[in-house]
Amino acid sequence: MVIFDDAMTERTRSENGSLIENAAKFPSGLATIVDTLHRDGLLFGVYSSAGRFTCGGYPGSLGYETIDAEWWSSLGADYLKYDNCYNEGLSGTPKLSQDRYAAMSNALNSTSRQITYSLCNWGDDKPWEWASTISNSARISGDISDSFDMPTTSCPCGPDEYYCQLPGYGCSIVNILGKASHIVSKNQPGYWNDLDMLEVGNGGMDHEEYKMHFSMWAAIKSPLIMGNKLDQLSPEDYAILINPAVLAISQDPSGSAISRKLVQQVDEKDEHGFGEVQVWSGGLNNSDQVVAFLNIGNASRTMKFSLVDIFGGIKTNENAQRSWDLFDVWGNETVMSNDVASQVLNGTLAVGNATGYYNASAKSWAQGLNQSESLLLGTPAGSVQGGGSISAEVPRHGIQMWRLREAGGGEQKRDEL
Amino acid sequence: MVIFDDAMTERTRSENGSLIENAAKFPSGLATIVDTLHRDGLLFGVYSSAGRFTCGGYPGSLGYETIDAEWWSSLGADYLKYDNCYNEGLSGTPKLSQDRYAAMSNALNSTSRQITYSLCNWGDDKPWEWASTISNSARISGDISDSFDMPTTSCPCGPDEYYCQLPGYGCSIVNILGKASHIVSKNQPGYWNDLDMLEVGNGGMDHEEYKMHFSMWAAIKSPLIMGNKLDQLSPEDYAILINPAVLAISQDPSGSAISRKLVQQVDEKDEHGFGEVQVWSGGLNNSDQVVAFLNIGNASRTMKFSLVDIFGGIKTNENAQRSWDLFDVWGNETVMSNDVASQVLNGTLAVGNATGYYNASAKSWAQGLNQSESLLLGTPAGSVQGGGSISAEVPRHGIQMWRLREAGGGEQKRDEL
Amino acid sequence: MVIFDDAMTERTRSENGSLIENAAKFPSGLATIVDTLHRDGLLFGVYSSAGRFTCGGYPGSLGYETIDAEWWSSLGADYLKYDNCYNEGLSGTPKLSQDRYAAMSNALNSTSRQITYSLCNWGDDKPWEWASTISNSARISGDISDSFDMPTTSCPCGPDEYYCQLPGYGCSIVNILGKASHIVSKNQPGYWNDLDMLEVGNGGMDHEEYKMHFSMWAAIKSPLIMGNKLDQLSPEDYAILINPAVLAISQDPSGSAISRKLVQQVDEKDEHGFGEVQVWSGGLNNSDQVVAFLNIGNASRTMKFSLVDIFGGIKTNENAQRSWDLFDVWGNETVMSNDVASQVLNGTLAVGNATGYYNASAKSWAQGLNQSESLLLGTPAGSVQGGGSISAEVPRHGIQMWRLREAGGGEQKRDEL
Amino acid sequence: MVIFDDAMTERTRSENGSLIENAAKFPSGLATIVDTLHRDGLLFGVYSSAGRFTCGGYPGSLGYETIDAEWWSSLGADYLKYDNCYNEGLSGTPKLSQDRYAAMSNALNSTSRQITYSLCNWGDDKPWEWASTISNSARISGDISDSFDMPTTSCPCGPDEYYCQLPGYGCSIVNILGKASHIVSKNQPGYWNDLDMLEVGNGGMDHEEYKMHFSMWAAIKSPLIMGNKLDQLSPEDYAILINPAVLAISQDPSGSAISRKLVQQVDEKDEHGFGEVQVWSGGLNNSDQVVAFLNIGNASRTMKFSLVDIFGGIKTNENAQRSWDLFDVWGNETVMSNDVASQVLNGTLAVGNATGYYNASAKSWAQGLNQSESLLLGTPAGSVQGGGSISAEVPRHGIQMWRLREAGGGEQKRDEL
Repeated sequence: MVIFDDAMTERTRSENGSLIENAAKFPSGLATIVDTLHRDGLLFGVYSSAGRFTCGGYPGSLGYETIDAEWWSSLGADYLKYDNCYNEGLSGTPKLSQDRYAAMSNALNSTSRQITYSLCNWGDDKPWEWASTISNSARISGDISDSFDMPTTSCPCGPDEYYCQLPGYGCSIVNILGKASHIVSKNQPGYWNDLDMLEVGNGGMDHEEYKMHFSMWAAIKSPLIMGNKLDQLSPEDYAILINPAVLAISQDPSGSAISRKLVQQVDEKDEHGFGEVQVWSGGLNNSDQVVAFLNIGNASRTMKFSLVDIFGGIKTNENAQRSWDLFDVWGNETVMSNDVASQVLNGTLAVGNATGYYNASAKSWAQGLNQSESLLLGTPAGSVQGGGSISAEVPRHGIQMWRLREAGGGEQKRDEL
Repeated sequence: MVIFDDAMTERTRSENGSLIENAAKFPSGLATIVDTLHRDGLLFGVYSSAGRFTCGGYPGSLGYETIDAEWWSSLGADYLKYDNCYNEGLSGTPKLSQDRYAAMSNALNSTSRQITYSLCNWGDDKPWEWASTISNSARISGDISDSFDMPTTSCPCGPDEYYCQLPGYGCSIVNILGKASHIVSKNQPGYWNDLDMLEVGNGGMDHEEYKMHFSMWAAIKSPLIMGNKLDQLSPEDYAILINPAVLAISQDPSGSAISRKLVQQVDEKDEHGFGEVQVWSGGLNNSDQVVAFLNIGNASRTMKFSLVDIFGGIKTNENAQRSWDLFDVWGNETVMSNDVASQVLNGTLAVGNATGYYNASAKSWAQGLNQSESLLLGTPAGSVQGGGSISAEVPRHGIQMWRLREAGGGEQKRDEL
Repeated sequence: MVIFDDAMTERTRSENGSLIENAAKFPSGLATIVDTLHRDGLLFGVYSSAGRFTCGGYPGSLGYETIDAEWWSSLGADYLKYDNCYNEGLSGTPKLSQDRYAAMSNALNSTSRQITYSLCNWGDDKPWEWASTISNSARISGDISDSFDMPTTSCPCGPDEYYCQLPGYGCSIVNILGKASHIVSKNQPGYWNDLDMLEVGNGGMDHEEYKMHFSMWAAIKSPLIMGNKLDQLSPEDYAILINPAVLAISQDPSGSAISRKLVQQVDEKDEHGFGEVQVWSGGLNNSDQVVAFLNIGNASRTMKFSLVDIFGGIKTNENAQRSWDLFDVWGNETVMSNDVASQVLNGTLAVGNATGYYNASAKSWAQGLNQSESLLLGTPAGSVQGGGSISAEVPRHGIQMWRLREAGGGEQKRDEL
Repeated sequence: MVIFDDAMTERTRSENGSLIENAAKFPSGLATIVDTLHRDGLLFGVYSSAGRFTCGGYPGSLGYETIDAEWWSSLGADYLKYDNCYNEGLSGTPKLSQDRYAAMSNALNSTSRQITYSLCNWGDDKPWEWASTISNSARISGDISDSFDMPTTSCPCGPDEYYCQLPGYGCSIVNILGKASHIVSKNQPGYWNDLDMLEVGNGGMDHEEYKMHFSMWAAIKSPLIMGNKLDQLSPEDYAILINPAVLAISQDPSGSAISRKLVQQVDEKDEHGFGEVQVWSGGLNNSDQVVAFLNIGNASRTMKFSLVDIFGGIKTNENAQRSWDLFDVWGNETVMSNDVASQVLNGTLAVGNATGYYNASAKSWAQGLNQSESLLLGTPAGSVQGGGSISAEVPRHGIQMWRLREAGGGEQKRDEL
């Protein structure tokens, strides 16, 4: 999918109120471009705001929901990102915000086209409480920046402020992860917490940081939208973005997000004052589990946690009593070597032929998982007995993430209970 | 009473908007089951949500209050738990929430049946300010978990946050007690703060912790709803749940909750960072008093407090000047031995014949108390002079709770003043 | 004035909706009592709530504003305290609260009687922003208790929380002073911040604490309503309540409150964790000033502050450059000796003949002040040069309060500038 | 422009509802005065409140928007400051506030006159979210005071509280800068965050403090309204207010504010507890940049920061890779000597003839900048290489501010990329 920004239209509406495509930008007409996109198997995304103007000062759709939705539908739009700028004060209670965004939901549903509705009100008025019945995803925080954990004045709410009165912009990925941590349970098939676009490839973070960023966005089931310049993507970053074992977690049929089970302060604070480790886990389809160890401290460290802690700290937890085989979802990272990735990126190798790439069009994620495709599971990384612990060396600002599959056909046994 | 969950109905309404009972689940019809319940002297509880869907994705009752209330009434329902999921943004001010829940209140009151109305909006918009005129109880916090004091990311508001913007789930009993502490005065006969279901019997807490949990839920007059699997209840846990001296406090005619008078930090922090003692007290019918010492630290300790502190710290307090006889409400715990409890649980002994069990159907709590039934008072535990102090050894994560009865016929003397 | 509580009426309204006087309580009829009150020169206050019920469970006036106001007017009521219990969720924005309280304001104004309207919504929704156009005073906090600075669970917002979501009850005077400190400027003739009734005489505080309590309530211009049992008032407490120099500040024609200029932490924390000194000051009629030193620490201490600090810390402040004569408003405290006070209280001496009592009916406060009545000024306590400092020994939990009058006819000089 | 206060009118409206000019104050009529103002090239500002009364107790315009706007228009008003006193509870959600202020916006737009609309609701309900479509500026905080960083009880929200429930008054400039820091991005040509009037010239701050105050108000693009007595302005303060290099930043065609990139605590705390340094930067027209080093500590100090930090901490920032020439915007401060300033202030020298004064009527700011007028750039202060650092000695409570212009015609090069 390609999302067009607000410069897709002219700065003013026509006399009858309709939006006008930007003739200077699209001399051969938008329709031609959309046709090309669709012919190439790509989807066409549009952007507007539930306000008088878009954030860029183009006409907003508040009060024009029907006419705009019909235009987008007639253009063949597949996706709408609907922003929150210039909202005329129509916020401050969930009701005020819901009314404004429900108007567009109704308008989209009245068109003849299936248009994915991406609500973006920066988490104001707690969309996780009401957005799932009117949209397909909702942003939960201020805008992301290409930074691991730098605090900024423009994103004043910290990672633990679960009710932010000034979402802002310039939010680091650690900041957004914190905000997401309290509401991961709101996900369900067809509705997703949106942690904002990916920064992988923009150069502001190192490789370990980008791996944590991508892993967590996938495991929390945030929409995965690339926010980098495609023609400047490095092979290393490309390898992150197409990691099949991580994408298989993102696309798991369960649709459920992993959740944070533990936060512990550690000694080595980094330059921005962070020094903590986090443990996340959650369930997947077929009783598989995801476990992630995050090192948000200033030095590499061995992280070791018991299954009881990993699965939530309640000693009666059944998952903590099971035995598991571990698969390292980043163990395959080297499968697609830089050489291969370079060839894909420079067009000398078709991606479908590249080692380490999973073709989900040919075989669905669910099917591949059922068949235990090793690209999707990750690389075998030992096992853990019921009641035992998992240990790993995790680099500074890095992540260790595993898929756990019950050892010895446990799944079947459980069904017999 | 048995509360049925949302799977009682089909996933969609009928064409005329009515709920449909789940035919697969109840092949012989719900009516048959309800008849059986009622014949056995049990009540029949139903569940729905003041939203488009229930939390489990079944049809919610928002906009269908009348038709649903009538159906439940026709089925013979005695109780409704009314949840808050998918509420379409109709929250954010007390008015918005009250309107939504009052609609169901009116609908229930319009039926021909007496249906206890259990409001469950997780404490959003401060139901303690407005729910008592429309319902019989209201939940005050996020969902309980089977944990004594473990902080969780999913229940982000701490025990001292009296205005929680994200109730969540996974709240420990110490967390919920803290939230309850500020609003205990809102109780009145016919309206109760609901601290969520009991975890006794689920295995996540030790015996002392479960005793504190049950004691405080009773003394705060929270509804006491078992949340465990009945067929897996241990004799020890069963003995907690049927403790007559504690239940007599819960069922006291006064309907007033005990309140927290004192919190003191202590040195031994437990694994979750808590290290404090709390003193609670409150009045019962006939001028009896309840006093509870809570040890939320990591080691057993002697707790000693003056009557002035116990009754609120104001030196002119009249109760602090009186002399009292103490009755340990857990002193009878061993009366119903594990052997007896086992026999009751495995059906070889009728509960009415069991030692240590109080049959409130035969003699009401109020009557028993007036007759000073020792099962209801607890075991004598000394006395305290006016102006004196009470002292007790309280185990780690444990409670010492007494009923106080004025020494020497004080009650009568007071009436003569 | 005598304020009657909600037990003035029956528990239910009549068929036509009107309140019914409590026949059991007033066998000879309320009218008789009101006549007696008025004949004795006393005023008659009534109480209700802007809700379905009063806090005591009697009928509230929400929806019955007109009929109730007319009844009170016909009874000869002079004052209404209008509470906030059972408000049906009509709060959460200033608009919702204002609408509810404005309805009674309009109803009172439509009667033929002048009824002082005392709004009591515990500071919810910031009445200081909107109550002055509809009422004569508004409570700003949870209910007062007879305690100097004890924190209580039932009054969870601390003294620095200027936006309290759970006002509660059991608030200490230091707690309420802190809450008042941020909004003292909202006072104006005809509208007053209400810090709740006086506790002087109830026995929970010592003499110095009661002096601070009374001094500050007077200087902040809170309504001064006795909350003690009249027949149990001690001579010492009586002397506090009738101190002419303090009352002259309360009744000053300017109507402006003193404000807090400085808070400093000190070492000796008291049993409740407080250890701070505060400096307050403010203007009176005719350019007189009030200065108060508060010692909220655990030991007597010498407090010394410069005029610049006393008058707000801005070095260009004109008052800091003037020279002042100081009058100790508690210097006259011993004028009405315990003996005299005892005689007044036991009825053997008419208050008008008592030494140390100021008869404001004979000569108004303003007139007395203009004539520099020494009872109203306080006792001479030296002077301070422009740019100088004031120093005093202030007892533990005590106050030193002065009236400052410009030295050497400064007032006249200023007029000539 | 001269802004008239609320005493411009009588205390009551006429029978037909219109405001009446204050006859005692303007014996020859307001019209005469306005004519004089306009003839002298000055603009005429008026003041009212979106409430029942103005803050001074004169009639407010709530409900009288149209009649008042028409009167002001007929008088020839050029500007309205519209306050928030006595707003009848019409606040608490952005919607309630927006409605109230939009009513006046519509009324002003319906007159035949262009009237600049200055919204002043103290930042309640986040005007930065909704005021730009209805007004030209909006106040963001409580009232300013003539103090650098003194905390006051009357302005309870600290500099980091981005959602203030009690704006109050007596806010220091450091306090207001903190509140502004989170919302600087909301500025756009035609809408400005208003940090309140200037205190320069009132005597409460020293020279360095006033320079920081004026520099930051200019660089944040706050309206620059003198709040001092014109006839008491010192030559030193006058020189601050007319500094051409600072005014050129204020009047830059880009309209964008600088933003805070860094806050660091330092050791030397001042008397009010502040000890920190801040780095701000932002873009101007033609790719010029502003960089400001603020020393909010108790001693002069060398501040040195890398371009990466200065431009936001993201290592890929393009501005951090460029080389810049620096211009000290206070280097010209001495150009207008005290002698010259004195002559201007006492009227013996026309301001247009004074050295160090920029005549923007003769040549616009934009034109002057395009021509690199040295008065507007500031004095050359060296250069910095891409990836390098800038260092300066900054006095206690002082600022060092530079304009940065790309070295070696970088601007042109960038256009060619």
